[in-house]
Amino acid sequence: MIVITKNNLPEERLNEIVAFIERRDGMQAHISKGTDRTVIGIIGQADPQLGEQLKSMQGVENVIKISKSYKLASRDFHPDDTIIDIKGVKIGGSNVVVMGGPCAVESPEQIDEIARLVKAAGGQVLRGGAFKPRTGPYSFQGVGVEGLVMMAEAGRKHGLLTITEVMTPEYVDVCAEYADILQVGTRNMQNFDLLRKLGTIKTPVLLKRGFSATYDEFLNAAEYILAGGNPNVMLCERGIRTFETYTRNTLDLSAIPVLQSLSHLPVISDPSHGTGRRELVEPMSKASLAAGANGLIIEMHTDPDNSMTGDGVQSLFPDQFAALLKDLEKLAPLVGKQFNTEKQPQEAFATWKK
Amino acid sequence: MIVITKNNLPEERLNEIVAFIERRDGMQAHISKGTDRTVIGIIGQADPQLGEQLKSMQGVENVIKISKSYKLASRDFHPDDTIIDIKGVKIGGSNVVVMGGPCAVESPEQIDEIARLVKAAGGQVLRGGAFKPRTGPYSFQGVGVEGLVMMAEAGRKHGLLTITEVMTPEYVDVCAEYADILQVGTRNMQNFDLLRKLGTIKTPVLLKRGFSATYDEFLNAAEYILAGGNPNVMLCERGIRTFETYTRNTLDLSAIPVLQSLSHLPVISDPSHGTGRRELVEPMSKASLAAGANGLIIEMHTDPDNSMTGDGVQSLFPDQFAALLKDLEKLAPLVGKQFNTEKQPQEAFATWKK
Amino acid sequence: MIVITKNNLPEERLNEIVAFIERRDGMQAHISKGTDRTVIGIIGQADPQLGEQLKSMQGVENVIKISKSYKLASRDFHPDDTIIDIKGVKIGGSNVVVMGGPCAVESPEQIDEIARLVKAAGGQVLRGGAFKPRTGPYSFQGVGVEGLVMMAEAGRKHGLLTITEVMTPEYVDVCAEYADILQVGTRNMQNFDLLRKLGTIKTPVLLKRGFSATYDEFLNAAEYILAGGNPNVMLCERGIRTFETYTRNTLDLSAIPVLQSLSHLPVISDPSHGTGRRELVEPMSKASLAAGANGLIIEMHTDPDNSMTGDGVQSLFPDQFAALLKDLEKLAPLVGKQFNTEKQPQEAFATWKK
Amino acid sequence: MIVITKNNLPEERLNEIVAFIERRDGMQAHISKGTDRTVIGIIGQADPQLGEQLKSMQGVENVIKISKSYKLASRDFHPDDTIIDIKGVKIGGSNVVVMGGPCAVESPEQIDEIARLVKAAGGQVLRGGAFKPRTGPYSFQGVGVEGLVMMAEAGRKHGLLTITEVMTPEYVDVCAEYADILQVGTRNMQNFDLLRKLGTIKTPVLLKRGFSATYDEFLNAAEYILAGGNPNVMLCERGIRTFETYTRNTLDLSAIPVLQSLSHLPVISDPSHGTGRRELVEPMSKASLAAGANGLIIEMHTDPDNSMTGDGVQSLFPDQFAALLKDLEKLAPLVGKQFNTEKQPQEAFATWKK
Repeated sequence: MIVITKNNLPEERLNEIVAFIERRDGMQAHISKGTDRTVIGIIGQADPQLGEQLKSMQGVENVIKISKSYKLASRDFHPDDTIIDIKGVKIGGSNVVVMGGPCAVESPEQIDEIARLVKAAGGQVLRGGAFKPRTGPYSFQGVGVEGLVMMAEAGRKHGLLTITEVMTPEYVDVCAEYADILQVGTRNMQNFDLLRKLGTIKTPVLLKRGFSATYDEFLNAAEYILAGGNPNVMLCERGIRTFETYTRNTLDLSAIPVLQSLSHLPVISDPSHGTGRRELVEPMSKASLAAGANGLIIEMHTDPDNSMTGDGVQSLFPDQFAALLKDLEKLAPLVGKQFNTEKQPQEAFATWKK
Repeated sequence: MIVITKNNLPEERLNEIVAFIERRDGMQAHISKGTDRTVIGIIGQADPQLGEQLKSMQGVENVIKISKSYKLASRDFHPDDTIIDIKGVKIGGSNVVVMGGPCAVESPEQIDEIARLVKAAGGQVLRGGAFKPRTGPYSFQGVGVEGLVMMAEAGRKHGLLTITEVMTPEYVDVCAEYADILQVGTRNMQNFDLLRKLGTIKTPVLLKRGFSATYDEFLNAAEYILAGGNPNVMLCERGIRTFETYTRNTLDLSAIPVLQSLSHLPVISDPSHGTGRRELVEPMSKASLAAGANGLIIEMHTDPDNSMTGDGVQSLFPDQFAALLKDLEKLAPLVGKQFNTEKQPQEAFATWKK
Repeated sequence: MIVITKNNLPEERLNEIVAFIERRDGMQAHISKGTDRTVIGIIGQADPQLGEQLKSMQGVENVIKISKSYKLASRDFHPDDTIIDIKGVKIGGSNVVVMGGPCAVESPEQIDEIARLVKAAGGQVLRGGAFKPRTGPYSFQGVGVEGLVMMAEAGRKHGLLTITEVMTPEYVDVCAEYADILQVGTRNMQNFDLLRKLGTIKTPVLLKRGFSATYDEFLNAAEYILAGGNPNVMLCERGIRTFETYTRNTLDLSAIPVLQSLSHLPVISDPSHGTGRRELVEPMSKASLAAGANGLIIEMHTDPDNSMTGDGVQSLFPDQFAALLKDLEKLAPLVGKQFNTEKQPQEAFATWKK
Repeated sequence: MIVITKNNLPEERLNEIVAFIERRDGMQAHISKGTDRTVIGIIGQADPQLGEQLKSMQGVENVIKISKSYKLASRDFHPDDTIIDIKGVKIGGSNVVVMGGPCAVESPEQIDEIARLVKAAGGQVLRGGAFKPRTGPYSFQGVGVEGLVMMAEAGRKHGLLTITEVMTPEYVDVCAEYADILQVGTRNMQNFDLLRKLGTIKTPVLLKRGFSATYDEFLNAAEYILAGGNPNVMLCERGIRTFETYTRNTLDLSAIPVLQSLSHLPVISDPSHGTGRRELVEPMSKASLAAGANGLIIEMHTDPDNSMTGDGVQSLFPDQFAALLKDLEKLAPLVGKQFNTEKQPQEAFATWKK
């Protein structure tokens, strides 16, 4: 941590700041006097709170953190890639995972038919929302717990893992009962009570980046889950909000290699929400894989005209989904990845849960 | 609602879209054929879901909403200003309310002393966080329920209303037991389960704008609370995230007149979080009032050097706070507002709660 | 300047970096070794190029500038407010200047009538574009040099200074021949050849902030003009581009006190372009003054229905303009400013130019 | 074009607006009355100015353009891909072009050595700046015309096309004399006088997207050049400014398929400026190609420690550049593209210019 003082700081105040630092165990302040400013380097394992307090002190212009504020999520702390194994499906490292399905679970028939098509195309995970976060209170809010049952059953029948969104701490347990992976949506990335609750279980979590979250905030959000004791976290880039409105969001593909260098956690890309437009899902899926993504989560619907959430506009048709997966399979080896389909033992799916 | 079709849409598909619309009760499609595109105007009370579904249909280029997706929050629906009366303190209309206090409640002595100073300066509401939303899990997370008690006691003693942040549905009841106003923080503006829970009580809510939320999303978030049955909602502009990093956020003062024209709810400004810099709080408080704000929420601390959250950097000193309130009192009449201090009956504060 | 090295930098590389720094005259490197990183403080007057080169070096993680990259624009260098005196109209310090007029000069009658109204309302400067920067090539591009003549004549007749936009170096001289102040538009803030050319004359320049420029870039753009030898620069906040599309731009009023603390140059606010909506011009003008603006530039049109640029949507009607100026005059003393009208000697306007 | 009126517009005003529209030749207004608003569809070839004027009219809430404001740049107007052939190097369609070289030309030896390496690796165009746009006036501004000569000579010797940035209309002719392609930098995307001047010549132009420009503004900027008579325009995505500061910009790869669908012009990606970090250039180059880019412009430097602009931090080393091109060559066929190296007749490069 480096403290930059204000111009021409009185000696006395400098001494107070130094004393404030050195009052901590094992902390040393190292002073460099420049022409008009003094810089204090802090040596020792600084807690984040110290930085915050220093920033508030009079005479301090700025505090620059050198060390990262997250630890368990950091590659410095855990140099090897985290590989999460769920019923034999490996996520992370050189494996490419594809999650596909509708925005919302609508009926047993709908989700069963889509599951069949996801499996046939080579996908490994069935996505579908039972609880939907909606901008306004009058929009369709999802079918609720019943949807969890429908999806679990479709996953079991077709040999697919399932992923669904959980929006509030009190629903974590029921969602974890039915789904293999719990998704935290973009608006909940900093719902800290939800993150804390997810830290108390072991069910893998796909944490979506807040649509205006920095990489640092994103990894700190993951840290909440990891610090609670759940090591099974995947990061998901799903587009950020910018001034450009032609696309629903701006899919920030640089996030993929950046997050992979800062962290050991798998990074999944969501080109459906990241673009909001069906015709962009194919090129941006390929681009995501080329940028090094560990997997993709893609919306697919058999009847987008009658989807209940309006996200049909970004859903692939089943044939587009299947064709895309074929192309991705060819692309994977060129970036040192493999696209394993049908490798998981089918008996793992005999019941709903692990 | 207006539907714009894709270039050279086949007649057959146009008919399908029209049929899809007119299948709804009381809906009519009104067709305008242009040189290469057809525009369908929809007449009737459209539900938001229809728009979303239309957007997903093939052959549709875009759907433009003419009516707003929120209703109870809209000034069209409720032309007069909402004025919230809490123990005689009026918020909304031509009244100016000032809320002051520390970022976090730290100790009974700290909050008592600050409450005394807020009251002496002419403030009407004591702010203070007992539960703190923090970017990382290792930062100070607030003193919890004990803090609620300390603050309630300080409010009672000095005749101040109290406001505190609630972060999760399960804490709404306990927070409402101790505080007069519940605050929803910027990261929770779209925590829909929290909003729904707040709709089930009557305690006034100060809803902070998400740091990347549009006005439309902000008013839709308020709509969740109103639609649940709680009419006592205040909106709070607290800065948005932009490319500029010199200020912690960019305080969007245009939001004040815009929200006041779109909605009847009071609009409060938060220049402390909106700028993140002590020296900007004074000019931006004045600017907020000049732009028409119904009140201000301002951080003030007696000892920012030793504040526990690092937000001391944006806290006014007590003398700055008092001087600012004097200036604001003079400014108010020039924008048709009055700055009433000491008008509330002191017996209202004899106990903690309403 | 501070150099932060990468984790566990080999000693040898550290020495190379230090040698690279100390090769410069009067530069010293001051080394602080932390647990896993080394920080090098550079003492001496660093040129910006050194920072850029260091940033490119292998083994360097980051370079943090402590000193500002601009000098002549900085308040450190010039502690007193710059006050620009044009024909007796003072801009800067405690004076409030109001510039009003149409987006574009359209005809001699139009500009004459508007000039009369600006003067009558108490404005001191007539604005109007002769050359218009337009997003597309098929939009109205302004009436050109003829417009300069029309505006100069209207200014002379009514005793108003004139301001007009110049878009390219080759038109600087002709614009300076007719107008009292030259405006650099938001899209040209980093048109460095234009800035350099403006540095070679003495005509005052109103430099608009690029709609996505940081304060630092803005002041560096001003530095180009100042460094060329023209000290008469005013800064103009005119709104930045954000995700919010309800307003044309987000008027960043924090920019006013920030720029006034970083720089000695006058800061003018443009609520017309900053909001793009007529009904927001009044509250945001008042807010700008309350935030400490040294003046305002406001669009006003007698017949917005028939304005040629479409900016009529943000133009005040003459009666609104007059009423606003009356209110601003009352507001000014509350923020330590005065609103002098009619103070300039009329003979100064007997001819077009100074 | 669609005009949406304000709530409860008086009949009389509606008639005035309709009359205003129908006064134009061949324009018809088509009225749809909704519950509380009237929508006017305009049929006929609307000029952009009409839309702007309507937007300014009282009683008009909003004007929505259905047709695009650009024409020559639009794929509607020109369905086939534009393929620009320069000395046998084809840019556009299924061809992949790679442009490589230093940020700035520094010396004859530097540019000659880099040209040799670009050619050896399979690149077809040598990039290098002679005139550099720099944020501050005290940074290195480029070596000027001499640099053009050095680069032209290096291009000739090694059989490479050359591209260099032009910053102001008066330098267009001299830059076009020496270079095969002229680059318009991000800060000049809306330097309309520069664009107009480039429309008067035939030298191909690489137009970089403004760092905060929408797709629509970008294509309108291209339209300026096309409308002037120069059909040889390439678009370049080079990153946009967002709240994320870890990367220098956010490379918006969705821009590639979007621009290719809206326009027939080739789209080049610049992962060097788009990320500002050497280690991200490789993954983002691959991602760009996978997203369908028609080419890449990549910074490469033999000695980034001593580069003069500080952009060394984003420059590849020669071996990295060569390895990347090998990988890209394998990737191209998977997205229907080919990566032709060494196809151009060497005699074309016997002299400097076409």
